[in-house]
Amino acid sequence: MRLRQIPLLCSLIAAGAHADTIIEHANGYTLNAKGDMVQFDAMAFDDQGRIIAVGTAAQVSAKAPKAKRVDMKGQTVLPGLIDAHGHVFGLGGMLTQLDLSATTSLPQALKAIGAYAARQPRDGWLIGRGWNQENWKLGRFPTAAELDAVVGDRPVWLERVDGHAGWANSRALALAGVTKATPDPVGGKIMRDANGNPTGVLVDHAVELVGRVVPKLNDEQARRQLDAALAEMARVGLTGVDDAGIGVQQDRLYRDYADHGKLTARVYAMIGGTGAEFDQLSKNGPLNSYGKDMYALRAVKLYADGALGSRGAALIEPYSDEPNSHGLLFQTNEQIDAMMHKAMAKGYQVNVHAIGDAGNRQILDTFAKEIPATHTEAQRHRIEHAQVVALADLPRFQSIGIIPSMQPTHATSDKNMAEARVGHERIKGAYAWRTFLQQGSRIACGSDFPVESPNPFYGIHAAVTRMDHEGQPIAGWYPEQEMSLKEAFRCFTLDAAYAGHQEDKVGSLEPGKYADFIVIDRDMFKITPYDIFKIKVQQTWVGGRKVH
Amino acid sequence: MRLRQIPLLCSLIAAGAHADTIIEHANGYTLNAKGDMVQFDAMAFDDQGRIIAVGTAAQVSAKAPKAKRVDMKGQTVLPGLIDAHGHVFGLGGMLTQLDLSATTSLPQALKAIGAYAARQPRDGWLIGRGWNQENWKLGRFPTAAELDAVVGDRPVWLERVDGHAGWANSRALALAGVTKATPDPVGGKIMRDANGNPTGVLVDHAVELVGRVVPKLNDEQARRQLDAALAEMARVGLTGVDDAGIGVQQDRLYRDYADHGKLTARVYAMIGGTGAEFDQLSKNGPLNSYGKDMYALRAVKLYADGALGSRGAALIEPYSDEPNSHGLLFQTNEQIDAMMHKAMAKGYQVNVHAIGDAGNRQILDTFAKEIPATHTEAQRHRIEHAQVVALADLPRFQSIGIIPSMQPTHATSDKNMAEARVGHERIKGAYAWRTFLQQGSRIACGSDFPVESPNPFYGIHAAVTRMDHEGQPIAGWYPEQEMSLKEAFRCFTLDAAYAGHQEDKVGSLEPGKYADFIVIDRDMFKITPYDIFKIKVQQTWVGGRKVH
Repeated sequence: MRLRQIPLLCSLIAAGAHADTIIEHANGYTLNAKGDMVQFDAMAFDDQGRIIAVGTAAQVSAKAPKAKRVDMKGQTVLPGLIDAHGHVFGLGGMLTQLDLSATTSLPQALKAIGAYAARQPRDGWLIGRGWNQENWKLGRFPTAAELDAVVGDRPVWLERVDGHAGWANSRALALAGVTKATPDPVGGKIMRDANGNPTGVLVDHAVELVGRVVPKLNDEQARRQLDAALAEMARVGLTGVDDAGIGVQQDRLYRDYADHGKLTARVYAMIGGTGAEFDQLSKNGPLNSYGKDMYALRAVKLYADGALGSRGAALIEPYSDEPNSHGLLFQTNEQIDAMMHKAMAKGYQVNVHAIGDAGNRQILDTFAKEIPATHTEAQRHRIEHAQVVALADLPRFQSIGIIPSMQPTHATSDKNMAEARVGHERIKGAYAWRTFLQQGSRIACGSDFPVESPNPFYGIHAAVTRMDHEGQPIAGWYPEQEMSLKEAFRCFTLDAAYAGHQEDKVGSLEPGKYADFIVIDRDMFKITPYDIFKIKVQQTWVGGRKVH
Repeated sequence: MRLRQIPLLCSLIAAGAHADTIIEHANGYTLNAKGDMVQFDAMAFDDQGRIIAVGTAAQVSAKAPKAKRVDMKGQTVLPGLIDAHGHVFGLGGMLTQLDLSATTSLPQALKAIGAYAARQPRDGWLIGRGWNQENWKLGRFPTAAELDAVVGDRPVWLERVDGHAGWANSRALALAGVTKATPDPVGGKIMRDANGNPTGVLVDHAVELVGRVVPKLNDEQARRQLDAALAEMARVGLTGVDDAGIGVQQDRLYRDYADHGKLTARVYAMIGGTGAEFDQLSKNGPLNSYGKDMYALRAVKLYADGALGSRGAALIEPYSDEPNSHGLLFQTNEQIDAMMHKAMAKGYQVNVHAIGDAGNRQILDTFAKEIPATHTEAQRHRIEHAQVVALADLPRFQSIGIIPSMQPTHATSDKNMAEARVGHERIKGAYAWRTFLQQGSRIACGSDFPVESPNPFYGIHAAVTRMDHEGQPIAGWYPEQEMSLKEAFRCFTLDAAYAGHQEDKVGSLEPGKYADFIVIDRDMFKITPYDIFKIKVQQTWVGGRKVH
């Protein structure tokens, strides 16, 4: 027996050695364990996708003498970027469903809806998303009647760009049973005319009135969405994403994709809510790692409030541009406390969407109570968006130990709307990256795709310049909140990884970590920061495997 | 009588109107009264150099219909930049005396000294400055013997780049009476060999041992220096400077230059010390304005300690790279308190050089005592450099009400030396612009010329990138302390003006202020920040008069 094992062992060693790969002639950048920026020419990784060495050609060759070599031809190599807050199936839906996000007027949107309807089967719902009446400069929400005029024969349901409002035609309202007699649900609003009749737009919790009658995606449709989203993520250089709210169907597909080597980005998923799907998914507790660290399910996503655009975000003082409205908290203090306690007691990281200062305060208060009660400091609980925070509450992220998970492109997309909504004083605590960084907070950066583009270079550009792609406003919007390029790079790599308990596995290119890296068409650290959004990704590698 | 006055009055009005000037077709930028960045096409100013209107061509023409017009041809126009801390005669000296700042080795420096000596008259002292043994990678100070080998026949006295050490040859030491028997003065050090003999370099207060025997400049020499400095300042776009320490001779020359329209930059001067020259200059109290706001003498410059390079800065804990040394406080607490009290009681702004954390702490402590005692909050007292500050002391600038007057190029010039001197922990409170800005401090930016180049675009570049001109280090040196471009622009304009009580007169281009502006060769707000140091000034105007 012993004799027979020797040749087998030798051949394994030899195969292992030969399966190492060196990328060479790279213009490589990464943060190191000390948090310093370092450059490298070459990197070796094994056939398990683990990095063996990073450094000069000579240093790396010495560690992997028999490796096969891939010539980077002097191109710039970075660690794969991580989006700490995206909606993967939402992105897939946007790529495969009707997308109204580029429309700039209501007539243009109606034309696109009609054209899309003509291409679809006549028997199902028409589903779309991405509209924004602000971009249409409409000064009001659109109506069911306007939709009926282009599609009257089938139900139509179109989500607003932020997912916090939906626009239905009359068939959809009828199928949902939404009439003059339907009361506004708690935490939601049915837009109505002077007579009390629904006009077609449902806000925040009222969205569910229609949402619950929309037929669920079947697995085939869901796979099409996932395929489209993974391809798009690889194309823009994302090697990891925190999926901000999934259910049983998505969990099943993620495991299936991981089993079959089809998951081309690491997915760190949050269970959407603490209801029936949570009960089912949490039976065995948090899933820290699955499929060679390609998938994890150890977080829960909750919502404190809605969005600023639709005035659903909960504010302490009224909206500056609608003095009768404070927005809406989705739950009472007792309700959100019970939900957070339930998830935390089971050992989950709890990541709560909070946009308005009242939403953020409610969640901070609840974390301050529940983290000590559940002894879950180590879970790295997060507030998603942390968009408008009372100045007095900003330091509490640090004292309570909450990660702000933020989306730089929201600031450059929302800037005019946000300032109208909250005014000049409250805006000082809005999108306040520098204030967070200055007090020692790690910011996990993301995009909230498909609300914003998943392209992480859009995010880095916005973080560093606080400008849009036209270079406006001059010198940046509240530029005192700019990040340095190093900070933005860190927030989309190491700190995004940290927020997903993955900083020992990804987020930088160091021995022992996975070879998740990208090759880009220009040197991000040499070009003007104003052009960072123009960077194109030429190759994307995940776990030593080229996926784009 | 009445009838005869009418034509005279009419002609005055007409002359006034005709003497207005409009600059048009400008790509203009300025901060406005609200602190926002605004753009303008045109600006009108009257024959007193006061701005009448800023805005579009039509807006400006309406306010000054008969003005003569100057075509800016689309070039970028900015408010004149202000250096809040420079040494005007020092710059003039550097431009007219031996300058060793570009030397990179001791042999190269000695060769330059010898060549300079050959061009000078044989009967006087040879004076020079700008040497830095760090740049020579010498690992020690140079010696008198090395100087004697190239110039033995005349006294030679060469100031270190930071002015905090001097290098003498043996003739100079002999004339100063510095021998083995000379004790180190308080706050100073005579460098000595193993036998106790002076080696030629004198540090901090010991500099005066030679300095006091160097013949004073006569007025003709001083005028030559002032002319050279003013020309250089106009060339680099400085329309104002806070001269950090002058005496009776300089005051006389500034007044004379203002009287004769020869002062081409506004000078806000600080009296050097509280000794005999202060007593003479302060006889009539602070001079708030002289010669159409071209000159002011309402501040006093004091010193807490020396510089980091020569380890003269006073540190609370020992130097990281010289564990036996804490540096030197120039005065006891009682002495500095008496000096500050004397100046403050006479109504002067007190601006104290403090580099080390012990120096900064001593001055903060003294300000905390003396500002309430003298009721001089409104004087806007300053700490010059505020270079290495204990983290606990940073907020005290805000609570006590002290302006940090800082020099961005010091960070990029000093970065390696500074980190060696104070180590990784203390460096967090060093050159900490962002920390200051974040807590609400206004930073008055300057260069400390001739220690650094007077070019304010070098300063803006350093503030925004924390990189040297080679783009090093990657992503900037402690880039978390970067300023935004808007902040850096503000610190070299409005906030520098504020630190000199001039924000109502200069610092932005607004009606009623002086037309102090510059025309530059590229658009600072569009080019890559990495290139800001390459900006060239094409025109400099002070009070509506073109001076470059």
